[in-house]
Amino acid sequence: MKIAFLGLGTMGLPMAANLLKAGHAVCGWNRSPAPAARLSALGAQVAATPNEAAADVDVLISMLADDAATRAAVLDSQALHVLKPGAIHVNMATVSVALAAELTLLHEARGVGYVAAPVLGRVNVAEAGQLNILAAGDPKALAVVQPLLDVLGQKTWHLGERPEQANAAKLAVNFMIASAIGTMGEAAALVQGHGMDKAGFLELVTSTVFAAPVYKGYGQAIADECFEPAGFKLALGLKDVRLALEAAEQAHVPLSLVSALRDAHIESLAHGEGHLDWAALSRASARRAGQA
Amino acid sequence: MKIAFLGLGTMGLPMAANLLKAGHAVCGWNRSPAPAARLSALGAQVAATPNEAAADVDVLISMLADDAATRAAVLDSQALHVLKPGAIHVNMATVSVALAAELTLLHEARGVGYVAAPVLGRVNVAEAGQLNILAAGDPKALAVVQPLLDVLGQKTWHLGERPEQANAAKLAVNFMIASAIGTMGEAAALVQGHGMDKAGFLELVTSTVFAAPVYKGYGQAIADECFEPAGFKLALGLKDVRLALEAAEQAHVPLSLVSALRDAHIESLAHGEGHLDWAALSRASARRAGQA
Amino acid sequence: MKIAFLGLGTMGLPMAANLLKAGHAVCGWNRSPAPAARLSALGAQVAATPNEAAADVDVLISMLADDAATRAAVLDSQALHVLKPGAIHVNMATVSVALAAELTLLHEARGVGYVAAPVLGRVNVAEAGQLNILAAGDPKALAVVQPLLDVLGQKTWHLGERPEQANAAKLAVNFMIASAIGTMGEAAALVQGHGMDKAGFLELVTSTVFAAPVYKGYGQAIADECFEPAGFKLALGLKDVRLALEAAEQAHVPLSLVSALRDAHIESLAHGEGHLDWAALSRASARRAGQA
Amino acid sequence: MKIAFLGLGTMGLPMAANLLKAGHAVCGWNRSPAPAARLSALGAQVAATPNEAAADVDVLISMLADDAATRAAVLDSQALHVLKPGAIHVNMATVSVALAAELTLLHEARGVGYVAAPVLGRVNVAEAGQLNILAAGDPKALAVVQPLLDVLGQKTWHLGERPEQANAAKLAVNFMIASAIGTMGEAAALVQGHGMDKAGFLELVTSTVFAAPVYKGYGQAIADECFEPAGFKLALGLKDVRLALEAAEQAHVPLSLVSALRDAHIESLAHGEGHLDWAALSRASARRAGQA
Repeated sequence: MKIAFLGLGTMGLPMAANLLKAGHAVCGWNRSPAPAARLSALGAQVAATPNEAAADVDVLISMLADDAATRAAVLDSQALHVLKPGAIHVNMATVSVALAAELTLLHEARGVGYVAAPVLGRVNVAEAGQLNILAAGDPKALAVVQPLLDVLGQKTWHLGERPEQANAAKLAVNFMIASAIGTMGEAAALVQGHGMDKAGFLELVTSTVFAAPVYKGYGQAIADECFEPAGFKLALGLKDVRLALEAAEQAHVPLSLVSALRDAHIESLAHGEGHLDWAALSRASARRAGQA
Repeated sequence: MKIAFLGLGTMGLPMAANLLKAGHAVCGWNRSPAPAARLSALGAQVAATPNEAAADVDVLISMLADDAATRAAVLDSQALHVLKPGAIHVNMATVSVALAAELTLLHEARGVGYVAAPVLGRVNVAEAGQLNILAAGDPKALAVVQPLLDVLGQKTWHLGERPEQANAAKLAVNFMIASAIGTMGEAAALVQGHGMDKAGFLELVTSTVFAAPVYKGYGQAIADECFEPAGFKLALGLKDVRLALEAAEQAHVPLSLVSALRDAHIESLAHGEGHLDWAALSRASARRAGQA
Repeated sequence: MKIAFLGLGTMGLPMAANLLKAGHAVCGWNRSPAPAARLSALGAQVAATPNEAAADVDVLISMLADDAATRAAVLDSQALHVLKPGAIHVNMATVSVALAAELTLLHEARGVGYVAAPVLGRVNVAEAGQLNILAAGDPKALAVVQPLLDVLGQKTWHLGERPEQANAAKLAVNFMIASAIGTMGEAAALVQGHGMDKAGFLELVTSTVFAAPVYKGYGQAIADECFEPAGFKLALGLKDVRLALEAAEQAHVPLSLVSALRDAHIESLAHGEGHLDWAALSRASARRAGQA
Repeated sequence: MKIAFLGLGTMGLPMAANLLKAGHAVCGWNRSPAPAARLSALGAQVAATPNEAAADVDVLISMLADDAATRAAVLDSQALHVLKPGAIHVNMATVSVALAAELTLLHEARGVGYVAAPVLGRVNVAEAGQLNILAAGDPKALAVVQPLLDVLGQKTWHLGERPEQANAAKLAVNFMIASAIGTMGEAAALVQGHGMDKAGFLELVTSTVFAAPVYKGYGQAIADECFEPAGFKLALGLKDVRLALEAAEQAHVPLSLVSALRDAHIESLAHGEGHLDWAALSRASARRAGQA
């Protein structure tokens, strides 16, 4: 299949490279040129603009930073408008439910398929082709692109026929991570308030009842108070928490824990911590307790 | 060592049995007689009252339901007053930080050691002698009882020299569990609000980023809406969340997520769900969203 | 002065009528024709479109339902583009801080003044020309339109030189009202939970320490459980609470009470109460306590 | 009637003085002797201990600082035990619902009436005999003491037949005050975050929609950032908020706003602000926004 790949960031580049290795013809585009050059060195074509990349492909995959970057590449640059009827756009980025719904209608109107397929996993997982893929959309379109998803991930979870459902699910996963971090932050503040060493406590919980990767990774960062370099920036965490609350409000679902988490994120930004790793959310709890 | 064991409930009985098997002389007591009879059948002595059990022992272990049961057995029945000077009381129950501090002073005044050693793990873990033990107290007293703790658990985590610290840590673990349940409940409400199957979503998250026992167990119960019989009652969860907030207030540590969780527990009780399993906390999120 | 008045709803119509009575030439427009006809009967001109109304006026006043209605009338219908350079647009509606900032730039680019002047007071206050006006914008532009504001209100409060400031202030007032309602709802649930009559309690507080109009009015509605017809719809309250949280996030100000209020509003919508009066927010507290 | 008056603090002293002026025989007691001396100078008898004061009186009025002071004077010092059968104890302090219930039973067992009658109003109101009195208890006992309450207050609000009901109502009033302060704090943080002067904004709201004494007083303190001397200490505010949450939990009433307020109070204590006036609660909002 002929594939255009928009967005060659830390996640997008290894994903596009894997498709290339699997024998697909890939034409890559990235806003800044360096990553595209790296993909080109692996044998891919490179396009100067999104719509140049999208011309004449069977499948367009996008993996862009956020709603704005997605809008810019797909709508403003007219990539959608050059896709041929019957082509399929697989949007693997974490975007808002509202944008997913809007894109679904716009693609439908042009006879182009639209599948949402955001992913779980960081760079090393993407490199290994071991992502977990949260997919939703028209089953026929999904069946067509499944071989590509099989290259990128270890498993594709089918969540529904409306693409936005996959985005809602991905946002739910992300606020669950925020909650795990925020909860460890509160637990750390409590034990520290009682004169204990938070590192010892976090080792205890993350090697027993909470022995899951997300707890271990963020727990270690909280224990070490090591928030730079950021694996995932706190400010991006706030964006996802906000998108989750918007998705929830749209469905009339109140989320009291997520609201409390949103407040803590904003407090972190007010204290100049948006550029730090998401684990720095724990500082809000410490600061409220007069510990930081 | 000669040991008195107060409280032979679902956790206490297998723990006392393990001490017996390890060759210790154990005198057990329980408020209702049946479990004591079972321990007696394994070769233990049985006492009619806590103070009868405590007479002349080296170590008193208590594993009682809550603050009130502990007060009744240790203070009201005068078990503390019959302990010989130099004896050590190991309190393995989840009690309040305030009671731990009070008991520490009362034991000190009588020349009796006091160690707090609440545990992580359910019945099957207790039976296997594989508990994780959160211990705090005078290091010398702890050293004396360490061989007993080694019989009961796979690892003893030393958290500090003031017994109440272990209780604060244990309460922190418990509100982390409450938070995991509450967060899954909110995530389930969000995906359900967007027309997805919550069981599929929970399988996804608990087999990927949240592949930890506590998520798998409670996630399954939420997915199946199976809340009876209760492994751990929601009403007891509220008790621990309340004790955690009290411990935190004492140390001037505000915990916004735990406060929100407390509200949800109370709402569950208001709807007659206190007797259900802790996983039923998820129903509060569903009900607020008009889904239940 | 020659004035265009866009939006002749329950508030706009009496305001426009007061300007007419004060001797100003008013050209009114409304999306639905009936209110325009009523204004016409009082001697005003009537326009078929916003841009027809805006042609050749000194001052454009808009009093539209929300951001979308304001965008439609001012931007989409090109009313802004037909305003002559030097004209001033006074936006008296409760719109978002983001829209205010956007409109400020768009007006500046066309050499048209932009003043934000949202109001406090209901219909009868508007009729009496006794509104309190929250104004912000260029002081010179404000000075020009002050005689008009003096017709409409008893007092103009100058809040700053950036129009969006008046909108932030107005949203703050509105969430204070939401908080008063929500707090009365929680107090009512507490006294009812203890077997007292909530009406008696609310009479007590609203005739003593909380003897303010907003408490008396909403307190009576809560006491009587009389939520129809709606003076101000709960769904509109949610909109304002959401806009307040957006305005706050933009300035990195976390608002924990407002977040909790937002959750309660969403819960009300999930139970089909968005069309009821704002006072019905109290039902969320009652429902959580199993009282409703 | 012969009256014992326990607790001659800032509120108790003028209240006892008013009873004296109205012609009643008053025997006063206070933990520290100075206020008792002042009452003595007005013609009252003075007792060295609570039980000395209580001997042979018709009515015992207590106006003590909190649960502990009430327990000490009424139970520990045996004042209750010297009251003659048929006497009535009117407890006008703000105590917990749990203590009220306990005292009700203890008084009943001794054939002594127990009426709860906490008050609204500060010192100057107490001096003027213009308090609002929240009363609950046996109607017959209430009828007996009504003439005394008429001396102390402008109006007695009858809330129920169980004394604890008046305490629950009083705690509800107090968290409503906490909410008003906390809400003004959040509004002030929002307007300040948008570059406005919070004093101007607070003047605006407290002279229009929120023109109630409680808003004016606390609003002025927030505007001036004047938190000393404390009219009512923030730490006492936390105590009442905690008692309100306990009263609510007992009745299975979750209070999300009050929970959020409790967190803010604790945060204030963590920053050494417990001795400041309750208005200083607003600093928590400012600090979270990085403004303080």
